[in-house]
Amino acid sequence: MKTVPYEYKLIRQVEFSDTDMAGIAHFSAFFRYMEAAEHAFFRSIGYSIHTQGFDPPIGWPRVHASCDFKYPIRFEDTVEINLLVRERAEKRIAYDFIFRKLNGTAPREVARGKLVVACVTRDKANGGMRSVPIPPEIAGKIEPAPRDLLES
Amino acid sequence: MKTVPYEYKLIRQVEFSDTDMAGIAHFSAFFRYMEAAEHAFFRSIGYSIHTQGFDPPIGWPRVHASCDFKYPIRFEDTVEINLLVRERAEKRIAYDFIFRKLNGTAPREVARGKLVVACVTRDKANGGMRSVPIPPEIAGKIEPAPRDLLES
Amino acid sequence: MKTVPYEYKLIRQVEFSDTDMAGIAHFSAFFRYMEAAEHAFFRSIGYSIHTQGFDPPIGWPRVHASCDFKYPIRFEDTVEINLLVRERAEKRIAYDFIFRKLNGTAPREVARGKLVVACVTRDKANGGMRSVPIPPEIAGKIEPAPRDLLES
Amino acid sequence: MKTVPYEYKLIRQVEFSDTDMAGIAHFSAFFRYMEAAEHAFFRSIGYSIHTQGFDPPIGWPRVHASCDFKYPIRFEDTVEINLLVRERAEKRIAYDFIFRKLNGTAPREVARGKLVVACVTRDKANGGMRSVPIPPEIAGKIEPAPRDLLES
Repeated sequence: MKTVPYEYKLIRQVEFSDTDMAGIAHFSAFFRYMEAAEHAFFRSIGYSIHTQGFDPPIGWPRVHASCDFKYPIRFEDTVEINLLVRERAEKRIAYDFIFRKLNGTAPREVARGKLVVACVTRDKANGGMRSVPIPPEIAGKIEPAPRDLLES
Repeated sequence: MKTVPYEYKLIRQVEFSDTDMAGIAHFSAFFRYMEAAEHAFFRSIGYSIHTQGFDPPIGWPRVHASCDFKYPIRFEDTVEINLLVRERAEKRIAYDFIFRKLNGTAPREVARGKLVVACVTRDKANGGMRSVPIPPEIAGKIEPAPRDLLES
Repeated sequence: MKTVPYEYKLIRQVEFSDTDMAGIAHFSAFFRYMEAAEHAFFRSIGYSIHTQGFDPPIGWPRVHASCDFKYPIRFEDTVEINLLVRERAEKRIAYDFIFRKLNGTAPREVARGKLVVACVTRDKANGGMRSVPIPPEIAGKIEPAPRDLLES
Repeated sequence: MKTVPYEYKLIRQVEFSDTDMAGIAHFSAFFRYMEAAEHAFFRSIGYSIHTQGFDPPIGWPRVHASCDFKYPIRFEDTVEINLLVRERAEKRIAYDFIFRKLNGTAPREVARGKLVVACVTRDKANGGMRSVPIPPEIAGKIEPAPRDLLES
């Protein structure tokens, strides 16, 4: 997949351990899938989310996560998690996610999600975390997706 | 804990398997905690979320889930998950959740979440799920929390 | 990958949500990986572990699971889960698993695991599960791996 | 619960997110339950498994984990995880676990498991982990369970 500064499409197959007794993927699985797509996007632009080599060291905790569920997905369904960058601010990134079930008669949108992550470093004074600007090497490789993709 | 038709407080201790390599509870754990509080609330009003004895059989899939994270929680932290009913509509229930870390110098709000769940039954015609009114026996035991609790 | 009646190699990348605060993949992840390899093996021989179309319907609960851990694996490590059929008995299958970390200076064995699964059906008399012979269509596609592969 | 140097009984209720599409607790949940009992045992003797205050710092990775499953457990079942110390060696501890379902007509043993954990420190020379003797303060509070308990 070629590098796009605002998009990544991750394909997953729903695993047995993702399902629950209702026979569908547990809703918490969608959040793990979103994070997996985020990390794959970072690799696609040449970085690991486990960002190394920055001084001070940085991390990317989630400040917001949400998902709207339209249709259930089931064991062995093939799901595309389409990450789109909504906003790259100085200290945080907002992502949108469109989940599409690819097997079946036609691809079908099954859910939409959002993640907002902050760029932080550990505060030496009190051990807590403090927002810092995204390093320019990383920020330069990320840009917001065109509006029409986000609103599709 | 006595039965309250709009509130439940679940106490959890963060487990090792809830943590990630950042040394904090993984964000997906908050969604599992919310669901655990929802199910404990149902038990507190005399029902199981795995509702049995209704014809047709009903289930409670999530249609929306979200969480805003303010402070991380860590292994062996004691966390109160305060469920509050925001709305009981004909066919769905909206819950708010306030997460408070109880250990430390003083209780501290660490996150706020939301779940919206639909009351559904399996559609015999096509095998899909269809929204149905919440059975009156259950609906009669659930009511919205006072505004001041929700907006606190 | 061509169908082999006794082997499957699944490649996984360790995900952030698989890690724990020790900075390594949580040990329970190895069990989920083994199961994922088992299910991929079943697909490779033309079946889903969520076996459909058999009368009576069958399932494959685990009766034994174990793992010996030699080296930790970490976020974004690439791991091969090498499934080998140890035994196909009338009513159960025993699998061995060799975990190898593929990134790094040279492939390295990091763990060995075992699963024993029973072929069961639901007992109509009491609702419990009862062992039944593996259907011949499935049994005919599974055979024990050569001794030298198992003992390597 | 009073401190016993060789035993701990943890009570858990099976959660919805522990279940899978077979309608029972996923087998990986038993491993998380065992670990939770181990950590509760450590707290009962006055320590956290996230052992702090030792020089060099120590950790407790798993070197072996296994479980034999006899009966399934389901959503909202109440399960006792009975930890018993099998052996306290110089550098490792072996635990046995007996799982009993407490609800139903009579308590019933549903599974038996084992964990072997090593006491390790990070090797400064190569960044890897190296076994070290269990600190005497901790070792002095742990002893093997009487044979009859283990063989019951």
